[in-house]
Amino acid sequence: MESSVLIKFGQRIRTLRKARKLTQKQLAVITGFHYNYIGMVERGERDLRLTNIELFASAFDMSLSELFNI
Amino acid sequence: MESSVLIKFGQRIRTLRKARKLTQKQLAVITGFHYNYIGMVERGERDLRLTNIELFASAFDMSLSELFNI
Repeated sequence: MESSVLIKFGQRIRTLRKARKLTQKQLAVITGFHYNYIGMVERGERDLRLTNIELFASAFDMSLSELFNI
Repeated sequence: MESSVLIKFGQRIRTLRKARKLTQKQLAVITGFHYNYIGMVERGERDLRLTNIELFASAFDMSLSELFNI
């Protein structure tokens, strides 16, 4: 499951979350995901579907292109 | 299953494929997907996982950020 792109994406989510001073639980509330899922995403353990990736982009008020501008 | 982001992504894939004068079958060979899957993606019928999105980016020699620069 773990691959380079998943690791990079997870690190990106963690960086953006911390820059906004949000806990995983707070980001979970914003996105509607369970906070365990947030943790798995940040560790690169989930191969997210596009509609879920979009929910993270929306939570950070970014376009998908900006979200992937790693 | 169909949502705005999937429709937009599918149109993007179709546009990029046609700009390169590739058939769905040719893009299938490049990506390793079945050509039926390419058609479903282009119609916004598949909610792709990130690792599969990356295969399309690689096929078009683009970063993920460029691929989503719709």
